[in-house]
Amino acid sequence: MADKGTLYIVSAPSGAGKTSLVAALVDKLAQLRPSVSHTTRPIRPGEEHGVNYHFTDRDEFVRLVEQGRFLEHAEVFGNLYGTSSDWVKQTLHGGEDVVLEIDWQGASQIRKQMPEAVSIFILPPSLEELAERLRGRDTDDEEVIQRRLNGAQEEMSHYAEFDFLVVNDDFSRALFELEAIVEARRLHIVRQSVRLEPILENLLAGR
Amino acid sequence: MADKGTLYIVSAPSGAGKTSLVAALVDKLAQLRPSVSHTTRPIRPGEEHGVNYHFTDRDEFVRLVEQGRFLEHAEVFGNLYGTSSDWVKQTLHGGEDVVLEIDWQGASQIRKQMPEAVSIFILPPSLEELAERLRGRDTDDEEVIQRRLNGAQEEMSHYAEFDFLVVNDDFSRALFELEAIVEARRLHIVRQSVRLEPILENLLAGR
Repeated sequence: MADKGTLYIVSAPSGAGKTSLVAALVDKLAQLRPSVSHTTRPIRPGEEHGVNYHFTDRDEFVRLVEQGRFLEHAEVFGNLYGTSSDWVKQTLHGGEDVVLEIDWQGASQIRKQMPEAVSIFILPPSLEELAERLRGRDTDDEEVIQRRLNGAQEEMSHYAEFDFLVVNDDFSRALFELEAIVEARRLHIVRQSVRLEPILENLLAGR
Repeated sequence: MADKGTLYIVSAPSGAGKTSLVAALVDKLAQLRPSVSHTTRPIRPGEEHGVNYHFTDRDEFVRLVEQGRFLEHAEVFGNLYGTSSDWVKQTLHGGEDVVLEIDWQGASQIRKQMPEAVSIFILPPSLEELAERLRGRDTDDEEVIQRRLNGAQEEMSHYAEFDFLVVNDDFSRALFELEAIVEARRLHIVRQSVRLEPILENLLAGR
């Protein structure tokens, strides 16, 4: 138990910058692996099996669900998406941490199976800034933007279910905060007494 | 309760670099105050009342002990030292964090009164490096050094009573790790849901 890694669940409304932040965090920290989801949606040009997703057919996916092999799964626009329990648990058991981007509903499913998972919710600095980001370059249709904002608010209304809150106002500050959450957990006596075993033995030699 | 700061208790064997690290941490982080102990030992040239210590006479100190006004206290070489409960609790209540350097026995007394305190133990990277640091510039009397090493090992034998372990091999790395512990605690939902109240209200406006 003691040498196990930690599963981090990261949720956010779209426009909060979650994907960029998690990618930068994985780049920066050693022994932190991003979880790769299974999906039944067709592979797109440029995507790689096992990198972007584990692409699988519907029969295989349903079989895995029936065997209880997913930590969470959901259907989105007719495609199935899920997080394999086997890979996550093996990676944690090997002492590495895993980070998983997911919506609040997936986070809720995972908490039920792995209450020791650490969950982080990323917030934009303001509703006005979020509207600006959601407007982006692709549309100025106010109805579309309003629908996106409503979806974001629905997601954000679940913030209190998470262990940590990070505001993404300044990207490098938000990245530092994510790093602090992961680092602090690694410094806990439960993890350190295993990782530092040789040092502790040396320090207490002869006693 | 929710807007309260956190009390950090930092212990280490002498030679681990605790005092420099805590001073650097207090310099770096806002809203982290060092605790100033009470003592009955005479004030020395260059020391300031209320900065280095709260200097007090023995009668007053004993009266405070009897009134239960110390989180911990101890007698060292005939002088009394103690941590005022009033100041710590007021500071935490005001939402600031407090950091307190103390030996394992003082840490143990404080935990009994404030189990929510977060305790950190700082370790040197090796016994050889510690011996080198304890040797310092002032002595090469091996018996003196051996006695200091034994004292350090006695202190270190209590590492498992602490919440976090930090190894001071590289100073700036160790400082970063202390910072991560404090920052992560501040990012916890219990603290953030209070601190971010105006942002959360803005983000969820109209719902």
